[in-house]
Amino acid sequence: MTKIARFQHLGDARLGVVSGDDYIDVTKAYAALLASEGELNAAAIAQGELSPDSLAFFRGGDRTLSALQDAVAHAESLPDADAREAGIRVSQSSTDTLVPIPNPPKIVCVARNYGKHAEEAGLQISEIPILFPRFAATQIAHGEPIVVPKVSHEVDWEGELAVVIGKGGRHITREDAFEHVAGYTVFNDVSVRDYQFRVTQYTGGKNFHASGPVGPHIALADEGLDPHNLRITTVINGVVKQDASTNEFIFDIPALIEHISEFIQLEPGDIIPTGTPAGVGFKRNPPEYLRDGDVVEITVEGIGTLRNPVINEHSEETSA
Amino acid sequence: MTKIARFQHLGDARLGVVSGDDYIDVTKAYAALLASEGELNAAAIAQGELSPDSLAFFRGGDRTLSALQDAVAHAESLPDADAREAGIRVSQSSTDTLVPIPNPPKIVCVARNYGKHAEEAGLQISEIPILFPRFAATQIAHGEPIVVPKVSHEVDWEGELAVVIGKGGRHITREDAFEHVAGYTVFNDVSVRDYQFRVTQYTGGKNFHASGPVGPHIALADEGLDPHNLRITTVINGVVKQDASTNEFIFDIPALIEHISEFIQLEPGDIIPTGTPAGVGFKRNPPEYLRDGDVVEITVEGIGTLRNPVINEHSEETSA
Repeated sequence: MTKIARFQHLGDARLGVVSGDDYIDVTKAYAALLASEGELNAAAIAQGELSPDSLAFFRGGDRTLSALQDAVAHAESLPDADAREAGIRVSQSSTDTLVPIPNPPKIVCVARNYGKHAEEAGLQISEIPILFPRFAATQIAHGEPIVVPKVSHEVDWEGELAVVIGKGGRHITREDAFEHVAGYTVFNDVSVRDYQFRVTQYTGGKNFHASGPVGPHIALADEGLDPHNLRITTVINGVVKQDASTNEFIFDIPALIEHISEFIQLEPGDIIPTGTPAGVGFKRNPPEYLRDGDVVEITVEGIGTLRNPVINEHSEETSA
Repeated sequence: MTKIARFQHLGDARLGVVSGDDYIDVTKAYAALLASEGELNAAAIAQGELSPDSLAFFRGGDRTLSALQDAVAHAESLPDADAREAGIRVSQSSTDTLVPIPNPPKIVCVARNYGKHAEEAGLQISEIPILFPRFAATQIAHGEPIVVPKVSHEVDWEGELAVVIGKGGRHITREDAFEHVAGYTVFNDVSVRDYQFRVTQYTGGKNFHASGPVGPHIALADEGLDPHNLRITTVINGVVKQDASTNEFIFDIPALIEHISEFIQLEPGDIIPTGTPAGVGFKRNPPEYLRDGDVVEITVEGIGTLRNPVINEHSEETSA
């Protein structure tokens, strides 16, 4: 399975594919491939055809996917030392993971999409999906800290499978839905519960600064992967808090795509976090919330593990 | 008062300032000013310093504002025929108005912010502002049609004053709030009522395709304008439907900015539609909704008039 990542290396944001413990820098690999074919302007063409901009990759569809596959095959054919010297292959440990898509046109989150979570929250199953938007700027990368704001301590986890849209469209039918899915990633829909429930709309509670961990990479959709039968776990400081399967979805992925595209055009790079299973903190007895020093790990089987530490917000008022 | 507009002229998206019945193309005007000062590379510099990208203008702050003012002064000093021949001055009637900011980082709408509207909707005043996001892609320009979707006929109007953020910030206090306001525009927060109320979250009902008329321009904040004392009217097919004053706000502009920046960083180009007064369609007896052929005009005193026709969605299913 091909896993796409954005990473920072030597100060530069790059687009890569996971290869064991390394990333293949696909822009550089594509330039090397073109150069090996005698292209004199290889770097500039690679920068245009397979740029480090992940949104451009998803917009490019089959064209950029084919370039990416050619680039990866070329990189894997190179002697290891040559690939490393050229910066085509870099050790993941020498990089920082970045948010996979920093500028998605939309992030459309789903509430109450697992029966047992609806039950623990004391809520009925709705007739249509309950959706709420998240602003792109709330996203943080694998490894970046979730921030407990100074105005609340009710910061809760929500481990989720997220769908990434490839081909855009409106009025997409159930039958055609998977043609529009580019891949999958892991999302932590961190929620500030008092802000979420003080008023009818979730906006504040679901859009705090640094409350949207996502990644570490995007697993491209693949025939071998059934997104409706994946184990999903949330582990905090080594203790399992959520453990469920995406086979519990109330609205499956085609139903979500059909419903969202009923009112708005889906676009390449849109992200749909599909809702969280039972086991969140605020309905525990006593309630549990994230605190400075915690580490949250969310694993979706076959997709990846998203790990984030938790810190307190710095401020003039609270910092020494 | 300086009014900023984006317009399409001869196929090109341009940034302009309203000057009577004309637009001054500020990028071209700035290039002409630089050239008149002997700059050999004037067009390229103007393209960088005062590009047609309105978001770059708001991000530029005092630097781009000063360039814009110099550009306008230069354009106004030119003989009319010369300015027209150079494309620095164009008749508004020869252009199409574009959405003022096509790519705002956020659109944060406010619900229930006029007491009489809360009353007509049978709702209590909330302790903090009720906010809901709108996706940027729902925006349409002055003159573009509002679309009645094939899945609903409950399409309602909501005339609003919208705030445009200039300087970004987090934890902005009431006292500092107006330092962060770049200007004001008119918004029609068109709502599809059955979708809005079928589930607890407004997302679908507030994010239909072509449901966010905005413009026609952005009036830059000015000492002469008190945004809390402006008449706002919505007129449909010549009949007044909403007629109120922004002095009825429950949460004033500093309160909104303070609250939003409590959870997220405000950024240049963010748009905050401030809520609608009494007189919407769905609470009338009998309810009234927008229909194919209607024309909606929203006027905010001192800011402008936003006019949009209404059409039915075309589809294989419904078109002959």
